[in-house]
Amino acid sequence: MKDIFSKNYPLLITDVGIAGKRQEIFIDAAGKIGEIGPDLKKKYSGEAEFVICGDGALALPGLVNTHTHAAMTLLRGYADDMFLQDWLSQKIWPLEAHLTGDDVYWGTKLACLEMIKTGTVAFNDMYFFMEDAARAVAEAGIRAVLSHGFIDLGLPEKCETECRATEKLIAHVRSMGNPRIRAAVGPHAPYTVSDEGLTWCSEFAKEKNIGIHIHVCETEKEVSDSVAARGVRPVSILDKCGILTPRSVAAHCCWLSEAESRLFGERGVHPSHNPTSNMKLATNRAMPYHWLKKAGVNVTLGTDGCSSNNNLDMFETAKTAALLQKFYWNDPTLLPAGEALAMITSAGARALGFGDGTLTAGAPADIILVTAKTACNTPLHNPTSNVIYACSGSAVETTICNGRILMLKREVPGEAEILAGAAAAAAGLVKRAVTS
Amino acid sequence: MKDIFSKNYPLLITDVGIAGKRQEIFIDAAGKIGEIGPDLKKKYSGEAEFVICGDGALALPGLVNTHTHAAMTLLRGYADDMFLQDWLSQKIWPLEAHLTGDDVYWGTKLACLEMIKTGTVAFNDMYFFMEDAARAVAEAGIRAVLSHGFIDLGLPEKCETECRATEKLIAHVRSMGNPRIRAAVGPHAPYTVSDEGLTWCSEFAKEKNIGIHIHVCETEKEVSDSVAARGVRPVSILDKCGILTPRSVAAHCCWLSEAESRLFGERGVHPSHNPTSNMKLATNRAMPYHWLKKAGVNVTLGTDGCSSNNNLDMFETAKTAALLQKFYWNDPTLLPAGEALAMITSAGARALGFGDGTLTAGAPADIILVTAKTACNTPLHNPTSNVIYACSGSAVETTICNGRILMLKREVPGEAEILAGAAAAAAGLVKRAVTS
Repeated sequence: MKDIFSKNYPLLITDVGIAGKRQEIFIDAAGKIGEIGPDLKKKYSGEAEFVICGDGALALPGLVNTHTHAAMTLLRGYADDMFLQDWLSQKIWPLEAHLTGDDVYWGTKLACLEMIKTGTVAFNDMYFFMEDAARAVAEAGIRAVLSHGFIDLGLPEKCETECRATEKLIAHVRSMGNPRIRAAVGPHAPYTVSDEGLTWCSEFAKEKNIGIHIHVCETEKEVSDSVAARGVRPVSILDKCGILTPRSVAAHCCWLSEAESRLFGERGVHPSHNPTSNMKLATNRAMPYHWLKKAGVNVTLGTDGCSSNNNLDMFETAKTAALLQKFYWNDPTLLPAGEALAMITSAGARALGFGDGTLTAGAPADIILVTAKTACNTPLHNPTSNVIYACSGSAVETTICNGRILMLKREVPGEAEILAGAAAAAAGLVKRAVTS
Repeated sequence: MKDIFSKNYPLLITDVGIAGKRQEIFIDAAGKIGEIGPDLKKKYSGEAEFVICGDGALALPGLVNTHTHAAMTLLRGYADDMFLQDWLSQKIWPLEAHLTGDDVYWGTKLACLEMIKTGTVAFNDMYFFMEDAARAVAEAGIRAVLSHGFIDLGLPEKCETECRATEKLIAHVRSMGNPRIRAAVGPHAPYTVSDEGLTWCSEFAKEKNIGIHIHVCETEKEVSDSVAARGVRPVSILDKCGILTPRSVAAHCCWLSEAESRLFGERGVHPSHNPTSNMKLATNRAMPYHWLKKAGVNVTLGTDGCSSNNNLDMFETAKTAALLQKFYWNDPTLLPAGEALAMITSAGARALGFGDGTLTAGAPADIILVTAKTACNTPLHNPTSNVIYACSGSAVETTICNGRILMLKREVPGEAEILAGAAAAAAGLVKRAVTS
């Protein structure tokens, strides 16, 4: 008997709803969507090696998480309910000082498992030991853009080391030749990277034609510190150093001004709104979505790492984004369900360069099936509303990435081993930190 | 073979974690927790008719939702992303005008199913056709406090009708003699009920020794309208009419002042914070939890109805509450995970008069098992953090109310029939409204 998870097969998916219509989807052996139509059974029954009966499920493009630190799943629940600086200096950094490549491998395995189980097929990552992260992503079968967190703290020697580490990761990822995995440069933030470091990153990214992944204006303090020390806001520095490009994803952006929102539109930057993390760490302002929308910016969504969220469920993030925008900017019509769904599918895919994130013939088959036979999808007056406001990622039954089935009826091969391996890695990490 | 769902059996639950310790729980035939200890197998193996292997799950008290309109599950996704008044007058009220008792029965069946599947064992309800709601709750096996939404709009004749409707519901619920189901009076809000109506409600509730369920200070407009029209804030009116008692649950409370928070402490009122609904409808202020906590108030959590949330998952509500308090009041240490968990268990149970909401020998066995074998509970540095910040209600495997198993390994008897019945009722309701 064929193992449906083992490789790409030509697949036929029957009885799914797409934009309110009952449809069938044929996926070819190359992992592309061959055709979408109301009745493909006859045409493809010979060719398709497996048939997935959707049983009325909603078919959606796979979700895209544009800002996370995947391996931080190992720190899930390790420290919460603290001030940002205390949390980092007393809890997160002391633990991270003991991280190994093996930890990052297991943390990323766990993150990929959680993403597959909640319908995410692509993510934008920034962390350390990224060659180990790449190995985990390759095994998991989803897509990722991987960047080494580049932090030089203004020290020329450290800047040099970070440049070499970045070059090494990019070369390594290219050598893998895996179409699902890309590298990007990851200058951490304007307050942790020198102008020289930022400029090197932007030039290197341009030369290699790869993405840039950076934190921008998460806290008010970053902005006021920059103004106090240098007389300019962080976005000016980023623009001067060439960081604001159509290949750039800017995480957080809570404290962006209206003029900076317009500049993002002119430069083609993709912001990643991280509402859950921002609320948990009390950033005290929500990304100005209305200004960015007015400026035609491609706004996307991210979970941030699991130490400040504490999960990777993009359904939850989309709902939280829609709620936070309404609440903070005092307008219940802001960020309606349809826009939230576009943010976690098409906008995210475009930001990471993984196609256009829609269900279209010829596109890579990145598809999730969300069960309709569950309370959160009953009744189904408006499927988009149900997906954004009622369901969590647990309603995803089937996850397909690049034509390959990664989860079928909630089963992911090797789940128990991944949970056990990650739990052991997390326990070992804490033990090393405590006994050091 | 015995049907485990059919009635109360003496039960032994093995291998569960309670407050970080591996425990076993014996539940007697009367539905009470008989004993909790590390090794009860020998002692109870003869007596227990079923053994549930927890497989390392976290055992928690069943969750309590202190403010909802259960049957509004039928309106889930019917209208979103609108201004409150447009949403009510253009969408919700026109549909509700066509509601029947049968609709309320199916909507409440669906709500109870969703609650059981997400670990909620008790809720505080306010709606119409409440005798039909009572029938649904009786069948579902969970606990509820049911109130008729009393709205007189200052009209003496309408006030009279609402008094009779309230009396009728209370008499009906008493006649059921079901220990899981209680009635309360449900004066809708100070801006929809006359002072005479409020006073009648408070006196009737006192006479019958039952609860009061009311909306308080959800929007800024309610407060400013009251001050403009009568020179006093709504809470003064409620206090004058005797509504603020230790038997009262006050939903929303977004615009409570510090003095009113202290008054709630003095009167023993239980506020129900509804963070998701408040964000979705853009109330523009979060309940002042820090003032209420300082005043020693028993703060609880509610989902509100499914037309403004749009689900009944108390895990999500607890996380959103913890996030919103931190974000709005600009303090990441506010409402930590442990307090959020207490709000949806012990605080909620106390507010509704359903015991003390803890796992203790002699208490009614209202218990949920949250699987540990899942990504959201891996790693498990701090189970309370995982439950509040990482998991959704889908991590609940088993739900027990009053010693009766309502869900085992995610199976709820009759689930498909309830989903189909509720979907048909919702479709019929919309059809009647559209063709009227």
